Amino acid sequence: MFKISKKISKSLGRVGILATPHDEILTPAFVTVGTKATVKSLAPEQVVGAGSQVVLANTYHLYLEPGEKIIKESGGLHKFMNWPGPTMTDSGGFQAFSLGVAYGNNLSKFIGAKSPRQEEIDEAYDEEKEKKAKITEDGVEFRSIIDGSSHFFTPEKSMQIQNDLGADIIFAFDECTSPHAPKEYLEKASARTHRWAERCLIENCKLKIENSKPQALFGIVQGGRYEDLRKESAKVIGNMDFGGFGVGGSFVKEDMATAVKWVNEILPQEKPRHLLGVGEPVDLILGVENGCDTFDCVAPTRMARNGSLYTKLGKINIMNAKFKNLFEPIDEGCGCYTCQNYTSAYVSHLFRSKEMLAATLASIHNLYFLNNLMSQIRESILNDTFFEFKENFLRNYKN
Amino acid sequence: MFKISKKISKSLGRVGILATPHDEILTPAFVTVGTKATVKSLAPEQVVGAGSQVVLANTYHLYLEPGEKIIKESGGLHKFMNWPGPTMTDSGGFQAFSLGVAYGNNLSKFIGAKSPRQEEIDEAYDEEKEKKAKITEDGVEFRSIIDGSSHFFTPEKSMQIQNDLGADIIFAFDECTSPHAPKEYLEKASARTHRWAERCLIENCKLKIENSKPQALFGIVQGGRYEDLRKESAKVIGNMDFGGFGVGGSFVKEDMATAVKWVNEILPQEKPRHLLGVGEPVDLILGVENGCDTFDCVAPTRMARNGSLYTKLGKINIMNAKFKNLFEPIDEGCGCYTCQNYTSAYVSHLFRSKEMLAATLASIHNLYFLNNLMSQIRESILNDTFFEFKENFLRNYKN
Repeated sequence: MFKISKKISKSLGRVGILATPHDEILTPAFVTVGTKATVKSLAPEQVVGAGSQVVLANTYHLYLEPGEKIIKESGGLHKFMNWPGPTMTDSGGFQAFSLGVAYGNNLSKFIGAKSPRQEEIDEAYDEEKEKKAKITEDGVEFRSIIDGSSHFFTPEKSMQIQNDLGADIIFAFDECTSPHAPKEYLEKASARTHRWAERCLIENCKLKIENSKPQALFGIVQGGRYEDLRKESAKVIGNMDFGGFGVGGSFVKEDMATAVKWVNEILPQEKPRHLLGVGEPVDLILGVENGCDTFDCVAPTRMARNGSLYTKLGKINIMNAKFKNLFEPIDEGCGCYTCQNYTSAYVSHLFRSKEMLAATLASIHNLYFLNNLMSQIRESILNDTFFEFKENFLRNYKN
Repeated sequence: MFKISKKISKSLGRVGILATPHDEILTPAFVTVGTKATVKSLAPEQVVGAGSQVVLANTYHLYLEPGEKIIKESGGLHKFMNWPGPTMTDSGGFQAFSLGVAYGNNLSKFIGAKSPRQEEIDEAYDEEKEKKAKITEDGVEFRSIIDGSSHFFTPEKSMQIQNDLGADIIFAFDECTSPHAPKEYLEKASARTHRWAERCLIENCKLKIENSKPQALFGIVQGGRYEDLRKESAKVIGNMDFGGFGVGGSFVKEDMATAVKWVNEILPQEKPRHLLGVGEPVDLILGVENGCDTFDCVAPTRMARNGSLYTKLGKINIMNAKFKNLFEPIDEGCGCYTCQNYTSAYVSHLFRSKEMLAATLASIHNLYFLNNLMSQIRESILNDTFFEFKENFLRNYKN
């Protein structure tokens, strides 16, 4: 299922091919997020045109709307959304924790935050808030963001929903903890995630036999920002019979590479590793260097809809007045559909006029940028020039 | 420039080819509206894919945002919006009257209204409101819908803006009257429109020589719902040296075909005739039968964004509960991209989830429906089966 073609010498990084029932994924690869069975503002042909190989849809969102049974009856996620390539679904856990319960708002807010003073944060951590998540050994109760109705996800339920959705790669149900959480809580949560991982494996095994769907199940490593917890989690999860692994949880930005390294030094080398929710160009390069094969993140498309666009010199905001009469592409030399056919002046006009095509052109550009970055990384690894590529990219790219 | 290939016997309808510097338009044709230099929610390739031959952008909107000079500097409308085919711009008059002044709100509201009791309306007509439009012999003062700033359009100004925009076919600046307006007012307005038409011809002639842009200028026939005024206007405008003609103004729905017939019996046969702001399937058929060659309307795309979709049996609303789990295309047998690749259940899901792709898929479908209708009309005229086609279509299509 996963074939490593080449490794970076003196690092954990590698180039590989991840086979799925719907085509191969050349890794390292960026996975495009299509939350509700649609990459926002793009038709599938435009997603392919932007160089995307694989789309990840969110179990939580699809469970609530239109419901996994509709997608199952429709012939599964691929057919429902007319996406010809590989697909992934997440477990629903992250959203159940971050959107479904009050405390969770902090969860998303703090991901990627810079240098939070952890002691202060730990002190301020309110265990009462955690309780609002209603986490039990069995699973997690949460409220719908659509109508406030109450729902209960268990590891088994997550597997059943993901089986109905029918993606090629699915994820085990894990507990996503707040970066506020103190170590004692993380220990408990991590141990529970390991027990849930086993329940996911069992349920998935049963469903596979019943429905003969060749889905690959990835286990998720947790453990927050603590080396011992991360390594323990990598050891436990890495020893289970998963098709691949996800590195989950929240890390402060500058610790990401370190935490990923701890984990990937332990996880079995021959299996693919997905880094959840990471998509900034610099983080992608560091993630690959430290042994991750695939990455997903809403950032490129969400930022695009806000007019924030990648260029090789860093991000720009197309609403800046100077773009109103700049008759050049957004990023000189960029091969994307948007840069090949439209000026900054036109994209700027679309954003100022609140036209829907603004989001489309901007999303194509940002996705192409990341997909092209991954393609350059792959090439540099194959040519033994990864570190030159990295140095050169980081020298130009000012965040 | 315009070549008639075949006429419908015993009616004014015909099939023709309208040559422009950017390709030929096979007529009768529906013209897709791209108000702000973008067909809302669609990339140009999707517009082409929906069968659209020609796009009409609105002078009023582009003048206000991004400004005609930006589009001129960008290389003109085609290049700015990356549309390879023929383009039109309207004169800016309709929006200056309908959006730019207080009374004008009535203008758009009453277009297509059924059987208004005209006497009552005429009585209720408040000439004071008309004055808010600040129409003088020179032109019309209006306020921007964007920032309320004051602007002045004259026939010359409209020609200059349209020259900067650089569409293939442009329209003379006319006064758009309210359907409330009494006959005496329409007489004055119509006469003023005729004087403005002459000024447009002169200014356009001058600009053509200065800028050597091969734009075809169409004159506009006004005259409201009165036979004598319509015929007089057709005679006066028809005698001027325009490249083609537009039939403008507001008519109550059931009078449209009659008013168009009055006009087209008089306009020179060898020149193309455009019916402004008409796009309902039944109206298109009647418009062709009564001698119109091209039609533009925001209806198909605006309706699409509201989930209202054409089918051969009439319009449906995709938000209706029955579509949630209907795993069939929107219109069985439809050849559009949307119907070929997606189920009603998926389109319904996108609308319920307020996903941008909803507007895209729905707009493609509605545009294809009208473009395909026009293509079938052309074929039926060429095959001498127009009236059978009409009868058959109207029997199935319930509005």
